[in-house]
Order: sequence, then C-alpha cells, then structure tokens
Amino acid sequence: MSGTIHGVGLGPGAQDLMSVRADRLIRQARHIAYFRKAGRPGHARRIVEGMLRPDAVEFAMEYPVTTEIPFSDPRYNACLAPFYADCAAHLHGLAMQGEDVVVLCEGDPFFYGSFMHLHSRLSARAPVQIVPGITGMSGAWTASGMPISWGDDVLTVLMATLSEEELVRRIRDTNALVVMKIGRNLAKLRRAVESAGRRDCAWLVEYATMADQRVTPLAQAEAVTGYFSILLIHGQGRRP
Amino acid sequence: MSGTIHGVGLGPGAQDLMSVRADRLIRQARHIAYFRKAGRPGHARRIVEGMLRPDAVEFAMEYPVTTEIPFSDPRYNACLAPFYADCAAHLHGLAMQGEDVVVLCEGDPFFYGSFMHLHSRLSARAPVQIVPGITGMSGAWTASGMPISWGDDVLTVLMATLSEEELVRRIRDTNALVVMKIGRNLAKLRRAVESAGRRDCAWLVEYATMADQRVTPLAQAEAVTGYFSILLIHGQGRRP
Ligand SMILES: C[S@@+](CC[C@H](N)C(=O)[O-])C[C@H]1O[C@@H](n2cnc3c(N)ncnc32)[C@H](O)[C@@H]1O
Ligand SMILES: C[S@@+](CC[C@H](N)C(=O)[O-])C[C@H]1O[C@@H](n2cnc3c(N)ncnc32)[C@H](O)[C@@H]1O
Repeated sequence: MSGTIHGVGLGPGAQDLMSVRADRLIRQARHIAYFRKAGRPGHARRIVEGMLRPDAVEFAMEYPVTTEIPFSDPRYNACLAPFYADCAAHLHGLAMQGEDVVVLCEGDPFFYGSFMHLHSRLSARAPVQIVPGITGMSGAWTASGMPISWGDDVLTVLMATLSEEELVRRIRDTNALVVMKIGRNLAKLRRAVESAGRRDCAWLVEYATMADQRVTPLAQAEAVTGYFSILLIHGQGRRP
Repeated sequence: MSGTIHGVGLGPGAQDLMSVRADRLIRQARHIAYFRKAGRPGHARRIVEGMLRPDAVEFAMEYPVTTEIPFSDPRYNACLAPFYADCAAHLHGLAMQGEDVVVLCEGDPFFYGSFMHLHSRLSARAPVQIVPGITGMSGAWTASGMPISWGDDVLTVLMATLSEEELVRRIRDTNALVVMKIGRNLAKLRRAVESAGRRDCAWLVEYATMADQRVTPLAQAEAVTGYFSILLIHGQGRRP
C-alpha cells in the first residue's frame, strides 16, 4: 500500500485561517515537507509553528536559486528542473514506503504555487491529494477592508514580472485588479498604474493577515516591497 | 458596548474546508444570519448543519427576487435595495443591544458576495469583522485536478452575465480563465468559448467540493447548469 502525498494550502498567513481539514492533516502528519530559501526558517514552516507532532520528520526543500537569476534566463529553468525532480523523487520514495507526507503550501496550492512543480512530476506515479486554501489575495482584500469585486466586474490577476507595456494595457482594461510577485518590480508597476490613470485607487497590501500586516495607498508606498505584497484596485460594479 | 457583526467565509462547500477561525466563530455564535431563496433551506445554512449551538437564534434573510427579474432591469435594484436595508437594520439592532452576530457567507465574503451589500450599509455604524474564505473557484480548480495558473500567466475572472461579444474578447486575451454565475447563460458562454477557439481546453465544474461534485469537459456539458457551476480554462505558463 503506497502512502499519499498531500499538497496542503495554509492560507494567507494567520494560523487560524487554514482550513479545518488542513489543520487536522498537519497536526497528525509524521512527514512534513516545505520549500524555503536556503538559510531561512521558511514562511510555510513558520505558519505551522507549534502544530507539528513532536516526532514529525521534516524535509526542507531549499531553493538552489531564487531571485539571483531572472526568470527569463535559461539558467533559471536549468537550475530549478533538477531540484524539483530531486524533491519529487524523495517524496515519491516516502510514498512507496507507505508513508503519508504533508507538503505545506502558502495560500492555495494550485494558484501560482511551487507545489505545482512537484504535482506535475508526481501525480502519475503516486496518490496526490490537494487541500485548497485561502489565497494571499483574499487575505489582502480582507485587510483592505473593501470588497474586491461586485456584480459583473471583471477581475484580472497579473504578475508584476510582466512588461510595463503589458501591465498598462491590462490595468486599463479591467474593473478590479490584483497584482502579485511585486518585490523589485514596484517602480515599474507604479508607472504602469499611473499610465493607466488609476494611481489614486490602488492599494499596496503587505503581509496580509500576518503580524506585520500593512495597507498603504500606492501613491505613498516605498520603492521596493518584501516577498509578501499585493497590489489591489477594487471594482466598483453594480450594487443595489 | 456594541456587539460585532462577523461576515464569515464558509469556503466552497465541504464543511471541513472552512477556516479554523470560521469554525470556532460559528460553533460559539448565539446569533446566526444567512441569505436564502424563499422556501429553501439555504446553501450557506446547509454547510453549517450540525455545528450550531442548540440555543442559536437564526435570522434567515430571504431574497424578495432572484432570477425572475434580470439584473439589468431597474426593478431589480428597486426591489433589492430596501431588502438589504431591512436586513442591515436588523443586524445593526442586534449589535446595538451588545449581541455578536455571525453572518454566513459562501466562499469568500469580499469576492462577489451578497454580504458586501450589508457591509456597505453597516461598516460605518457598527463594528464589522470579515473572515476570508476559500473561494468557489479554488474549490473548482482543485476538483479539476489541475493548477489554474503558472509563472506569468494572466488570470481573468468573468461573470457569464456579460455580453457574448465581451466574453469572446476577454477569453481570447487571457491565459487562464474562471467564469462564474453561469446558470442559464451556458449556451452563450459555450458559443463565446468556441469563437475564442478554446472549446477543447474548457472545463465545467459543478458543486465543487460538495457531495454532488462533477467535472465535465465543456464540449460534453448540458445546456443549463445549477447555481454552483464554474467554467475553467487552465493556464499553461512557465514551468521548470
Ligand atoms: C508564488 S505566489 C504564491 C501564491 C499563493 N499560492 C496564494 O494562493 O496566494 C507568491 C505571491 O503571493 C502573494 N502573497 C501570498 N500571500 C500573501 C500575503 N499574505 N500578503 C501579501 N501577499 C501575499 C505575493 O504577491 C507573492 O509574491
Ligand atoms: C454570488 S457568487 C459568490 C462567490 C463566493 N463569494 C466565492 O467566494 O466563491 C456565486 C457564484 O460562485 C460560484 N461558486 C461558488 N461556490 C461554488 C462551488 N462550490 N462550485 C461551483 N461554483 C461555485 C458559482 O459560479 C456561483 O454562480
């Protein structure tokens, strides 16, 4: 009997915003795996602090590269592909020994998540189950205190890694907007929001639902943000 | 001391997919409110079946109209505005008596949710707290077994109530797609997906995470779907 690999959504950061199903799986798990930057405790690991069994076996999957090489550089993929393959092989080995493994995923696993790169390598070879999670963007619009979308509003989700031109075009053409993966792209993103004429309705939300949560009008935001930051423009659709 | 009105996200339908925070608030609540269609038990109420305190006081907010009048008809707003005002007045009254109230919200409260119409009427007059939830769309892409978006993918969320022309234009111009509020618009939506040349990668997900969950290629889907249905086109972005 082979074990199951669970890709478990943790939600946006606050521990009690994970689902009851995720909470139960994590507390019972004998094997826990998570991604992290080398030399860091890891965001996902930090969210579950205090929840793990004393005898839990942890498997930290440390990225060989993060922002040192741009995504567009072929070396980026050349470096990550064997890393994901190694991680998948380790999880597969555990499953073949009959062990269940919980892989911790920030937000929702199937929404721009790293676990997807393991899922695509594992799903044909071992039982994989996904537990959805509250996304970072839901955490962000909740933090902003305003609904993101009403009535027939079109909502567009963009990555700030797109070109400035593409950002402008798409920001012009949507009612509600979410932009993720901002970091060093904030200056470009700000120019794009300004060109699209929407500077005064844009908000930057950092560390949504976490201890250091911060909501700032884009106009007042600094030049660079941390990893956990999302830009929002709220829709203004039909409201009886 | 006034009470707090909690807009609590229930997630996509399975009871154990609500957050730990939502679970705790619902089990402790003395006052519970929820929307429903007249004469029905109510979807949100059904999700919490078995969780309420025996002495919980329930306030069912029954829509005076649902699909009988089209959204675009001015009578739609004329009919709903006083209904929302009455519901808000009742909740406000409870809060002023010092009572906390939990309002049950399907999915995430601030994502195309009905509670938003109460929030906009209450937030300046009483303490309102929002608990985000797993959206129906997260439930849907989890049900489909495939990640919705990768790398730089653009994700567009549309309502099937938009015009066919608008649907075609936007479906052509996105990587990943979510369409909600389908119901009787399925025939129009299907034509739009076909015109955009994407019929063969579109999936219809009904009752995601619920007992009667169903995932069907759009090409094989029937003419009309129930209230809980979402169309998905999965992104194909960068994947090392
Ligand atoms: C690789 S994506 C992972 C998204 C995740 N799977 C989800 O469902 O939210 C990482 C991006 O998510 C966003 N993010 C996730 N959680 C966040 C939070 N709590 N506050 C702000 N941004 C967040 C940031 O934009 C970050 O760059
Ligand atoms: C008024 S919107 C409410 C959305 C909700 N606030 C959320 O976060 O998902 C109702 C639409 O959500 C979608 N929906 C919500 N939950 C769903 C589920 N479990 N399965 C399929 N569709 C769902 C359907 O498209 C439905 O027409």
